[in-house]
Amino acid sequence: MKVYSRKVFYYETDKMSIVHNANYLRIYEEARLSYMEQLGIPYTFIEDQGILIPVVDAYVRYHHTLAFGDEFEVRVKLAAFNGIRKKFHYEIRRTADDQLISEGHTSHCFIDETTRLPLSIKKKLPDTYERMMASVEK
Amino acid sequence: MKVYSRKVFYYETDKMSIVHNANYLRIYEEARLSYMEQLGIPYTFIEDQGILIPVVDAYVRYHHTLAFGDEFEVRVKLAAFNGIRKKFHYEIRRTADDQLISEGHTSHCFIDETTRLPLSIKKKLPDTYERMMASVEK
Amino acid sequence: MKVYSRKVFYYETDKMSIVHNANYLRIYEEARLSYMEQLGIPYTFIEDQGILIPVVDAYVRYHHTLAFGDEFEVRVKLAAFNGIRKKFHYEIRRTADDQLISEGHTSHCFIDETTRLPLSIKKKLPDTYERMMASVEK
Amino acid sequence: MKVYSRKVFYYETDKMSIVHNANYLRIYEEARLSYMEQLGIPYTFIEDQGILIPVVDAYVRYHHTLAFGDEFEVRVKLAAFNGIRKKFHYEIRRTADDQLISEGHTSHCFIDETTRLPLSIKKKLPDTYERMMASVEK
Repeated sequence: MKVYSRKVFYYETDKMSIVHNANYLRIYEEARLSYMEQLGIPYTFIEDQGILIPVVDAYVRYHHTLAFGDEFEVRVKLAAFNGIRKKFHYEIRRTADDQLISEGHTSHCFIDETTRLPLSIKKKLPDTYERMMASVEK
Repeated sequence: MKVYSRKVFYYETDKMSIVHNANYLRIYEEARLSYMEQLGIPYTFIEDQGILIPVVDAYVRYHHTLAFGDEFEVRVKLAAFNGIRKKFHYEIRRTADDQLISEGHTSHCFIDETTRLPLSIKKKLPDTYERMMASVEK
Repeated sequence: MKVYSRKVFYYETDKMSIVHNANYLRIYEEARLSYMEQLGIPYTFIEDQGILIPVVDAYVRYHHTLAFGDEFEVRVKLAAFNGIRKKFHYEIRRTADDQLISEGHTSHCFIDETTRLPLSIKKKLPDTYERMMASVEK
Repeated sequence: MKVYSRKVFYYETDKMSIVHNANYLRIYEEARLSYMEQLGIPYTFIEDQGILIPVVDAYVRYHHTLAFGDEFEVRVKLAAFNGIRKKFHYEIRRTADDQLISEGHTSHCFIDETTRLPLSIKKKLPDTYERMMASVEK
């Protein structure tokens, strides 16, 4: 599990005075890419290899709301990985009182930037495969 | 089932040259509010009654991608409603070739704008309740 | 002058219950690309020629605000064009009462997608050059 | 002059593989609110007094582009203030090589949240007025 945190930006709120629901997928993305960077596999490296990692599906549960200025942390886990697919789990908590704000997950595949066909990270980037495999948490 | 359609805006794309994954929740919202308006219950009317309808959870499945300029249509269904909760199903298709782009759903509750507590639409707005009840599709 | 119109989306509002200031540049973009399409020069055609049209500068004056659900129209003019640069003027009005909401402008250059160097539309796409030249309004 | 910095998020890019032009107004906002917070006047405090600070106009000059993952810093100055209006200047530079990316400014007024009428910070919040007055830089 790795942690990513920041404060809510003003423009992330909507007229309900809370962070708009679609922005949670953006926050999940920030947290996921931070996770990979903390693992020593920045997404810029992945893209330099001609690999893209699109989202296959995404689920967000909204337990509580975030207001402008709230500091939050995202606890990210690589929940599954087999070289072809990967799945991340997310938990957002408000830093001030540890209030659970959101839980969710996203699934991803790996594709070749040019052909847009799926590829195996195990074959293409064995070192990356090993490092990711070692950090999977059930 | 009701239909909402428009073209992809340039700013909705990301560096993969496709509509960014978080924007699907925005498109679902556009389609959902259009559904309610087509039903004769515009969201501005709901808000004028001091009622908010936050998202409880959301799921998006990304089957295919949308590019800048693509025309798409969203087929929206009110899949469940009991006066306390409601659930919408969404299907996005590219207009040109009917290609399935995304399927998903969102769940919602009704809350009082001031107290932020859940409320029953059946009690608060009986006419709205009846009209929504009549348009539920399994 | 060409006209582009639509309604305000819920997610475009912020906690002041008005369309967030940054979204005006998005609306200007929608209106500008609609202008080009109405002129018979869709941006997808421009990109297919390996040409990009980045923004050089942008100015927005906020006279009044837009709320969720408001219908608005953008009146767009190609205010200057010389084959190397172009400039658009924008005026946003609320449809219901013609209230002036915003005025602004954006300037653009044309660059080669590969080299990222400026190019002359007059040389590269003479027909496009003529059509744009003919629609300039001081 | 105060400094605000972070890295470019993936979702801030568009299909030109650069930060989309509208996002600069968001980045300016982040930097401006950080400026006020560093000055000891967080925007949450302002809003708690029933005051809103809408944008009156905004200008952005795009000198160079930002790519995903680029670290940048925004140098913000309070360029003018008279208790009724304020104006900020912004300069964005890429951290790695100090490349100038963008220059711009935004002007703002102060309004009463309820009446939406302009108000004088000098009368309403004398301490805030003094602190802001002391940090104006021509």
